[in-house]
Amino acid sequence: MTAVKDTIRNGVDTGTMFATLDLIKAQPELAQFQFRATNRWIAGAHNRSTIQGFYAAGGEDTSRTGTFELDAGEPAILLGTDTGPNPAEHLLHALAACLTTSIVYVAAARKVELTCVESTITGDMDVRGALGVDEEPRNGFKRIGASFRVTGNAPEDKLREVVDRARKRSAVYDMVTNGVPVAMEVTTR
Amino acid sequence: MTAVKDTIRNGVDTGTMFATLDLIKAQPELAQFQFRATNRWIAGAHNRSTIQGFYAAGGEDTSRTGTFELDAGEPAILLGTDTGPNPAEHLLHALAACLTTSIVYVAAARKVELTCVESTITGDMDVRGALGVDEEPRNGFKRIGASFRVTGNAPEDKLREVVDRARKRSAVYDMVTNGVPVAMEVTTR
Repeated sequence: MTAVKDTIRNGVDTGTMFATLDLIKAQPELAQFQFRATNRWIAGAHNRSTIQGFYAAGGEDTSRTGTFELDAGEPAILLGTDTGPNPAEHLLHALAACLTTSIVYVAAARKVELTCVESTITGDMDVRGALGVDEEPRNGFKRIGASFRVTGNAPEDKLREVVDRARKRSAVYDMVTNGVPVAMEVTTR
Repeated sequence: MTAVKDTIRNGVDTGTMFATLDLIKAQPELAQFQFRATNRWIAGAHNRSTIQGFYAAGGEDTSRTGTFELDAGEPAILLGTDTGPNPAEHLLHALAACLTTSIVYVAAARKVELTCVESTITGDMDVRGALGVDEEPRNGFKRIGASFRVTGNAPEDKLREVVDRARKRSAVYDMVTNGVPVAMEVTTR
């Protein structure tokens, strides 16, 4: 029974983790996933995404029984009424969350027990781009800063190695730093 | 009084919008904004971002009196317990929300009254990258599809023009398609 208990580290079942990795190594076709968000405009800067279904490991997921709802908005200075974080803030959260989960999973796999993972993510933007006032500044953040504090039962070198590996494997870090092709289609009726 | 009422379109005060644009044109130094998210690991794939403060128009914002909290998680197949949408799904929401708000704002500025903006955003991922099973697939989505339905009191051409302009001005669309430099720093105590 001790063996079973020992597989849980940082709240991650490393037994299941290694079994999943072995399965995907053996059957790479199971690695094709699709995630989705459905969004509906409510009023002004207020819109809401609904997230539930996804495709994973050869079929449509049936394990997620609940629906997640995420509200977006803008503060007054950007013409909204604060109905939620703004879209750029949601992107900062996505980045923070992905790096954090990657750190926790890599630490679990490498037998590091973490005590704390905290971060502050900042994004600097010249809003003349997005507002269409000037052609020169880009629309999005010109720079993102990610400041992490990570503590656990390992020497500093090992903790830094875990963070470095996590950064190299994070899905959202990859997308935010390297970009992703977006195909957009529109219907008007 | 009719003039005042007429400035609200799609829930956006276009009078304030044009005044804001004029102000930023006159004083470009007011265009420097910084948004932030603070994240804390809870357990396993569960972490939470807190979002409130931001810097805008020459000073720290004081208008936003409430704090937003966003939870992230992973479904069982990715070793979590569904404590929230996963980070990649949060990124899809950020993109949907930003394109939607951009469409609503551009339509308001161009005197188009919208009746509906709905979208489904999908992201295709080969999880061998993020799981570190194979070096070849990238960690993030290889492709994002954004399917929008936009209706309102304008001919199809005009609606398509609004969407096209919105896409060209969206902050998150810019970041997701072109990438952003991320500077990461770590402390371990």
